[in-house]
Amino acid sequence: MYKKEIKVVDCTIRDGGLMNNWKFDDDFVKTIYKSCVEAGVDYMEIGYKSSEKAYSRKENGPWKFCEESDLRRIVGDNKTNTKLSAMIDIGRIELEAIKPKKESVLDMIRVACYIHQIDKAIYHAEHCLDKGYEVCINLMSVSKVIEHDLDEALKDIAKSRVPNFYLVDSFGSLYSEHIESLMKKYSTALPQKQIGIHAHNNMQMAFANTITAIINGATMLDATFLGLGRGAGNCPMECLIAFLKNPKYRLLPILEGIQSKVHPLHKDISWGYHIPYMISGSMNEHPKESMEWMDSDRHDDFVGFLKKMHDKEILE
Amino acid sequence: MYKKEIKVVDCTIRDGGLMNNWKFDDDFVKTIYKSCVEAGVDYMEIGYKSSEKAYSRKENGPWKFCEESDLRRIVGDNKTNTKLSAMIDIGRIELEAIKPKKESVLDMIRVACYIHQIDKAIYHAEHCLDKGYEVCINLMSVSKVIEHDLDEALKDIAKSRVPNFYLVDSFGSLYSEHIESLMKKYSTALPQKQIGIHAHNNMQMAFANTITAIINGATMLDATFLGLGRGAGNCPMECLIAFLKNPKYRLLPILEGIQSKVHPLHKDISWGYHIPYMISGSMNEHPKESMEWMDSDRHDDFVGFLKKMHDKEILE
Repeated sequence: MYKKEIKVVDCTIRDGGLMNNWKFDDDFVKTIYKSCVEAGVDYMEIGYKSSEKAYSRKENGPWKFCEESDLRRIVGDNKTNTKLSAMIDIGRIELEAIKPKKESVLDMIRVACYIHQIDKAIYHAEHCLDKGYEVCINLMSVSKVIEHDLDEALKDIAKSRVPNFYLVDSFGSLYSEHIESLMKKYSTALPQKQIGIHAHNNMQMAFANTITAIINGATMLDATFLGLGRGAGNCPMECLIAFLKNPKYRLLPILEGIQSKVHPLHKDISWGYHIPYMISGSMNEHPKESMEWMDSDRHDDFVGFLKKMHDKEILE
Repeated sequence: MYKKEIKVVDCTIRDGGLMNNWKFDDDFVKTIYKSCVEAGVDYMEIGYKSSEKAYSRKENGPWKFCEESDLRRIVGDNKTNTKLSAMIDIGRIELEAIKPKKESVLDMIRVACYIHQIDKAIYHAEHCLDKGYEVCINLMSVSKVIEHDLDEALKDIAKSRVPNFYLVDSFGSLYSEHIESLMKKYSTALPQKQIGIHAHNNMQMAFANTITAIINGATMLDATFLGLGRGAGNCPMECLIAFLKNPKYRLLPILEGIQSKVHPLHKDISWGYHIPYMISGSMNEHPKESMEWMDSDRHDDFVGFLKKMHDKEILE
């Protein structure tokens, strides 16, 4: 029996944008949107809301800012069953810049934060909640957090009015046993909240970890078309939809989007499983260095990258 | 704490040979062998032992036959800690053609079989056991086996002298819950035997399923360099070695082999995760049709392949 409470959250544009500075053309974004709607995907995260004081328009495409006019050019008034989400980073947007929900086509604001920003994240999320949005907090880089600090953060979340909280494997460094253990911790600390999972594929664990999270109570599931996302990418939407037994989801529209737009993008940008990402994931390191290595002319020197990372470990 | 009883079995040449008819040059096979030895890999399966009456020498390279002279050209007398294995298919080799162990550099013979061949497989394996080899039976395509027949087969294996038995996900169609359930069945039915896992990566589950099998008692673990193997390939050796905590294993020699030989092979043959393999895996179908599709000029027509498979399902 399928779990009726499960919601699938597409992050193709938002997380994939980390690989091309959100320079997707309208046709690309429209195709992903149409595929999500037809496939029964519950949420589409169409980008970040950011301030132009924090990021330049020249270096970043429209989905780094999610201006209302850009959104409506793609989705109109979005009279569909697929809700729209945008992510915000603490300190990269002024809260006044977020319109009341009734003036926006966005339905959900997700606040990404590090452990030391939990109180600010709650403040931001409750602010957006009061403006009429669904809200969510995504605690990043949990694999580097000291357990005491995590427990304190979970207590703060529990006391807050924020209804949704995410387990985020930012470095793609978690195995299923970690996911099981963290999901138990999150569920126990947050019995009234909905828990989500956002996985990365450094060690080819993103889809498997998403399944493990489902088994342990996660009901909001992030995925991207063909896994498009930072570095090794994310849980592949096509695997997730093929796995879920809920009859409301359809695989064919996802494959249409992949075939027409996402798969051809491999000509321009490189994402997905590669040995340097596996190395950084297995060492529980931020993918920054593996991404730089992949961008250099040494991208196929796997031994060189392992040695570099080992040297760094010894020096630290 | 790591499990001391775990053994890693490299299948790069044997399973990867399904993609190029075992036409690896000596330098390639020597590199894999050297990497396995230096990495502490317990077994290297160097190919199939087959009869030239069953397969032509013209169409297949030496690792489809594993003649003693070919083996020794690569490994000499193999005075290393890495044991050598060859696989046999029922009916594709005469048992008389297998020399006594003392005349061969091979250490293990693995018998691959389908459910209806279990009695023949036991006969073959015990024959090789009596000739002095370690032996193992790999029951293929278990995802299509009726439970009653599987239970009967396990009773036969339990009564046999064959000490090793494999859970094989031939179609890459099993999720971790299936692996857990099958591992429990196998372990319960075969309390005195060593259980192995051989996974395929159609749904990006090969490595995760291998970990699930370990958690549920599997101690022989098949993997291949960069996942090289039929269709979507196998559990990647580099992920497995990075995961295992046993200090006898080393990642660097694996990466050397991948960097110098296996990664460059992508220029000539295509393996690994692709949408058609995901589709056949999720439908619990043999990868034959997805492999034909990938070899055709329609390989990037994912929608076409899904429709073809759905039509076939309706017609059947």
